[in-house]
Amino acid sequence: MTTTTADHNINVQQKAVEEDLVNRVLQSFDACENPRLKQLMESLVVHLHDFIRDVRLTEDEWNYAIDFLTAVGHITDDKRQEFVLLSDTLGASMQTIAVNNEAYENSTEATVFGPFFLDDAPEVELGGDIAGGAQGQAAWIEGTVTDTEGNPVPNARIEVWECDEDGLYDVQYADERMAGRAYMHTDANGDYRFWGLTPVPYPIPHDGPVGNMLKAVGRSPVRCAHLHFMVTAPELRTLVTHIFVEGDPQLEIGDSVFGVKDSLIKKFEEQAPGTPTPDGRDLGDQTWARTRFDIVLAPGA
Amino acid sequence: MTTTTADHNINVQQKAVEEDLVNRVLQSFDACENPRLKQLMESLVVHLHDFIRDVRLTEDEWNYAIDFLTAVGHITDDKRQEFVLLSDTLGASMQTIAVNNEAYENSTEATVFGPFFLDDAPEVELGGDIAGGAQGQAAWIEGTVTDTEGNPVPNARIEVWECDEDGLYDVQYADERMAGRAYMHTDANGDYRFWGLTPVPYPIPHDGPVGNMLKAVGRSPVRCAHLHFMVTAPELRTLVTHIFVEGDPQLEIGDSVFGVKDSLIKKFEEQAPGTPTPDGRDLGDQTWARTRFDIVLAPGA
Ligand SMILES: [Fe+2]
Ligand SMILES: [Fe+2]
Repeated sequence: MTTTTADHNINVQQKAVEEDLVNRVLQSFDACENPRLKQLMESLVVHLHDFIRDVRLTEDEWNYAIDFLTAVGHITDDKRQEFVLLSDTLGASMQTIAVNNEAYENSTEATVFGPFFLDDAPEVELGGDIAGGAQGQAAWIEGTVTDTEGNPVPNARIEVWECDEDGLYDVQYADERMAGRAYMHTDANGDYRFWGLTPVPYPIPHDGPVGNMLKAVGRSPVRCAHLHFMVTAPELRTLVTHIFVEGDPQLEIGDSVFGVKDSLIKKFEEQAPGTPTPDGRDLGDQTWARTRFDIVLAPGA
Repeated sequence: MTTTTADHNINVQQKAVEEDLVNRVLQSFDACENPRLKQLMESLVVHLHDFIRDVRLTEDEWNYAIDFLTAVGHITDDKRQEFVLLSDTLGASMQTIAVNNEAYENSTEATVFGPFFLDDAPEVELGGDIAGGAQGQAAWIEGTVTDTEGNPVPNARIEVWECDEDGLYDVQYADERMAGRAYMHTDANGDYRFWGLTPVPYPIPHDGPVGNMLKAVGRSPVRCAHLHFMVTAPELRTLVTHIFVEGDPQLEIGDSVFGVKDSLIKKFEEQAPGTPTPDGRDLGDQTWARTRFDIVLAPGA
């Protein structure tokens, strides 16, 4: 774990110098007219200085940090957002999600949004296929959307998106084709159902500075297999989450962006070829899977 | 001041979720084979998560931070280092200097290095003129270099650099000319002396995201008037510092990078035209100034 300033054998004079500096930086925000901005800057300064003082950051390490951030900035463009990857891999994105989606009774837990959502996905009928040509094991996914008192939520909008069996989202394909994503609405009972693909693990982009960091600290860039959900309904808190796949070996290794919650791990029950499907779809000699994900929405803000 | 997580009325369940996440991120560094890197990453994660939790960072604010860092990355190139400006204006550079130059008895205090040092400045004889054509009020600067026991340090190398009366360093000129910088060596008594310019305040580059931040929080981008020193001698700790100018109005407003130490503020005594100069130099009808800066070097590491 980290050491604190108090652990260091620094003399009283030195401690006073360091604390005086922190106070001078804090005072520099006295004229800030936006109270929230003032609070953010002051807290940032306190924690940033605590970090530097706790680790007794060397000048070489400071230089390394400047070069690292510069490299993160330079690889970032319209398609690649390395600062988001950095935030994700430090758990900062997930902590922001946690802070903004406070645990509320039995409401379904939120997780990271990720970079692969598109807001113009096609609509499918309930029971429809979201794969859109993406390859992978067919999976029947169904559930009910309720509020925290158990009342069904009809006409909730459910967006789902996922990668194909190669770990690629459609936006990573060379062509413009859309696949592995759709939206639908719950029926009068709050129920939903669709055909998707059994999720597989995939690595986040790791050929840049964040990938180098993960390698240096001995971490995997791979995300646990998951399927994204975003559920919206009037008067209720929007839920951005995933479901994960029970038995995925990456669950033991760890999710590179810390998105896993135990409550979100679902059993995808594998079905032998020829097992009758819920909607009579003929999958020939293919295995398929089925799972259930009931969704509980917290009250809106 | 900042609030702490304990101040927030968050429920026990929510607190457990947030702490569990921090612990999972910390555990992800368990396989790191470099103990110092492990310590740095763990401390960074603790302080970063504390910041997010303390301020209850909103998702909009997180997005703003990502966009801000992206803009800092994109303006940064070989000539402009906006991450250094960001570190400077948050006091992080100065805190790193403080941590690495611990107060030691009566040794002269260090301050920021800044971006304008060049390692191929010309040598001048003691008493020579470092202006090299840079315009400004002539100033005679002299002093003695000693160790903390008062022993003179002969042959110490003293690098000095400063801006002209327009607040520009030579590297900011349109041409390649070098001016306002030189190095010299102390004599057998540890004494040094040279002609330079009375320092004037100048703004750090503030037409980018860091300048926008300073404006948003109501801060000045201006640095207090100063003259840079770097002093090196065998067996002694290298000193990087400035001297500041007593009476500079910017001292009241505040230095944009928090480099000022009271012990480094020196009186530049203005001399009427015709006042005899220490070395007989004829400055005609010009005023000039003189100051003394005695330098005490701590023992080397
Ligand atoms: Fe994903
Ligand atoms: Fe400077």
